Amino acid sequence: MNVEIVTIGDELLIGQVVDTNSAWIGQQLGDAGFRVTKKTTVGDVEQDIREAIDGAFNRVSIVLLTGGIGPTKDDITKHTLCNYFNCRLSFSEEVYQNIVDLLNRSGRAMNELNRSQAMVPDGCIVLQNEAGTAPATWFEKDKKVLVSMPGVPYEMKALMKEKIIPRLKKQFLQDTFIRHSTLSVAGYTESALAETLTPFEADLPAYVKLAYLPQPGIVRLRLSAYGNRESQSVQSIEEQKKKLYALLGDYIFSEGNETIEQVLGKKLEEKEYLVGTAESCTGGMIASRITTWPGCSKHYAGSIVSYSNDVKKNVLGVSAKDLETYGAVSQQVVEQMVKGAIRVLGCDCAMATSGIAGPDGGTPDKPVGTIWVAAAVKDRVLSECFHFGKVREQNMLRTTNAAFLMLLKML
Amino acid sequence: MNVEIVTIGDELLIGQVVDTNSAWIGQQLGDAGFRVTKKTTVGDVEQDIREAIDGAFNRVSIVLLTGGIGPTKDDITKHTLCNYFNCRLSFSEEVYQNIVDLLNRSGRAMNELNRSQAMVPDGCIVLQNEAGTAPATWFEKDKKVLVSMPGVPYEMKALMKEKIIPRLKKQFLQDTFIRHSTLSVAGYTESALAETLTPFEADLPAYVKLAYLPQPGIVRLRLSAYGNRESQSVQSIEEQKKKLYALLGDYIFSEGNETIEQVLGKKLEEKEYLVGTAESCTGGMIASRITTWPGCSKHYAGSIVSYSNDVKKNVLGVSAKDLETYGAVSQQVVEQMVKGAIRVLGCDCAMATSGIAGPDGGTPDKPVGTIWVAAAVKDRVLSECFHFGKVREQNMLRTTNAAFLMLLKML
Repeated sequence: MNVEIVTIGDELLIGQVVDTNSAWIGQQLGDAGFRVTKKTTVGDVEQDIREAIDGAFNRVSIVLLTGGIGPTKDDITKHTLCNYFNCRLSFSEEVYQNIVDLLNRSGRAMNELNRSQAMVPDGCIVLQNEAGTAPATWFEKDKKVLVSMPGVPYEMKALMKEKIIPRLKKQFLQDTFIRHSTLSVAGYTESALAETLTPFEADLPAYVKLAYLPQPGIVRLRLSAYGNRESQSVQSIEEQKKKLYALLGDYIFSEGNETIEQVLGKKLEEKEYLVGTAESCTGGMIASRITTWPGCSKHYAGSIVSYSNDVKKNVLGVSAKDLETYGAVSQQVVEQMVKGAIRVLGCDCAMATSGIAGPDGGTPDKPVGTIWVAAAVKDRVLSECFHFGKVREQNMLRTTNAAFLMLLKML
Repeated sequence: MNVEIVTIGDELLIGQVVDTNSAWIGQQLGDAGFRVTKKTTVGDVEQDIREAIDGAFNRVSIVLLTGGIGPTKDDITKHTLCNYFNCRLSFSEEVYQNIVDLLNRSGRAMNELNRSQAMVPDGCIVLQNEAGTAPATWFEKDKKVLVSMPGVPYEMKALMKEKIIPRLKKQFLQDTFIRHSTLSVAGYTESALAETLTPFEADLPAYVKLAYLPQPGIVRLRLSAYGNRESQSVQSIEEQKKKLYALLGDYIFSEGNETIEQVLGKKLEEKEYLVGTAESCTGGMIASRITTWPGCSKHYAGSIVSYSNDVKKNVLGVSAKDLETYGAVSQQVVEQMVKGAIRVLGCDCAMATSGIAGPDGGTPDKPVGTIWVAAAVKDRVLSECFHFGKVREQNMLRTTNAAFLMLLKML
């Protein structure tokens, strides 16, 4: 069953907000057996919103809208839908009570704008928003469904998970089952991997698709199987996955949508190891990636972000002489950093980074992108020098992934 | 001059990749005087790509495509454009040489797939991609322009900045000038702010628009002015900005697209202060936010991410007795953390966080979302307890912004 997403907001068009909602919706719908076939983003303009809805209804039976239902004047989605579906706004006691409760909980006062959010179109089903003041609204017309949701990510996510997806599943019986499966591969560039997999791709049945999703230092392979029975889709995926394992073996470091930090975390838990980091050029990104996963408290001790040389010396115990002789971006320093992390943080293993992330700070000897990464497990220390590119954010991401992979291999 | 963006890739629809490209493109085009009026995302399906292009060309004269031009089989944009514009693929010596140079530089070998990227449509202008193997291609038809770009963000960005935007500016003379200006406001919820600004909004001339862009703990206000002369747009924006300053005064902490960490960074540089952090529940996010800005090395010393209590005690010197008596999430502990950061990292000021980010770990006394934040400048220490929600990522973001704001106020 195909779905289209329409995201609404001038801020999305002028680029002041990155639309993370529609990617999340795509994932959730995919898992539930739906398939997003198109996404459209329009501004807060009635005519554009109407045209986007018309276009989507011409192609599919389910249209999901996000955004434009806040209390402020620039948000016009609710009024547009009222006109589109020939409804009128009427006061909902239930929605009003929800707003009152929400404001009370956070100690805020009710104002006219909050009150106006209790006015909802009379021709729709209202889906209460427990995390915010704007409810979702579910419209039906000629057996087609349109759902309008708030654009605030955690409000939208709660509504989708708890109310909208269950309703969609119930209402639209599935003829086609889609299953996705992802394998994460390290140690191959995208094109080298594609060359290795050419015969595999040629042999793929028509109802299975393979896609390459490159990240800095990692390529994720996504298999998608389309079948008319759930068991069929699952079986096709499993068969192709086996073949990929036979071809790529140890280069596959993770399955499913697990991130590399989750894979590492599970390995650390198995071994009952505590991990820490000593970060210079990644500036806390490794720590931050580890701690996005709530499960990390079992295996994560902490980090020393030693951005300045003083912190490298005074906190991590890096030799002042070595810092002067070899510079901060050197094997000597990064290895002392990783050992320092184990000692100071009292952990079993650690990762360390020191490099020139850019855009400035390069020298002829050590141009921007020269980055040392070290990993240590107890007394064993490994280190490697990478030569990445010129883009700061990209260099930080690649370094972070390189550090995770290095430690993962050592465990 | 209006522009539409078409992003291509199954990975965008199923949500395995968040489209950050189109937001960036929207920003850059806005600054250059263009206006993105619609974005469409389609899968790697010829028919869908063609329909998206047809639709866009019906509405605007400039269409920008990203994605689907990698070397692998699932990428079909190049072939689709060949069919659409009635071109043939022909070998480009220049593109081939660029691929050879790129591979040499990174020590990789040429393979069939790389070689195939030197085949380009013969009816277009080829814009060399110095950061990757797939060039951008510029097609013209009936005075309308379509540009196809790689989906890899840093490749696309370099091409847009250096080649595509300059060409678009030259080719499409501007009749309408658009200027955006953003003010960041702290200390107001979105709806309280909207209530305060109701008379201001009612007085806005038709050619100026105001939009609210809420972030955790911060609302950005975006003014957009549309005029037929550049000076007119600039003047309208300046007039309205003055009014906002008169209404909101100190609640405005930043102007333009500066982030709060950049505002803080500039203030620290002015005072020649070094800053550090001691992070528990934010797990390195504050450090990571500070270091995304390359200019941070002048004012940033480093951080102690003290996720475990042992690190709080052993590295930051938090009293074991206080940890036991009051718990890690307490005023006593967060204040000792912030003082410890100043002492251990040798800096002038610091921020510290300790809280229950969730989703687990809450108690009746301290439910999920209970978070202590402290900031210190030399001997002065401030701390505050926040009661946020249940969503981990959201709590971390709000805490990070709260810490930045707290220190900013103290400086």
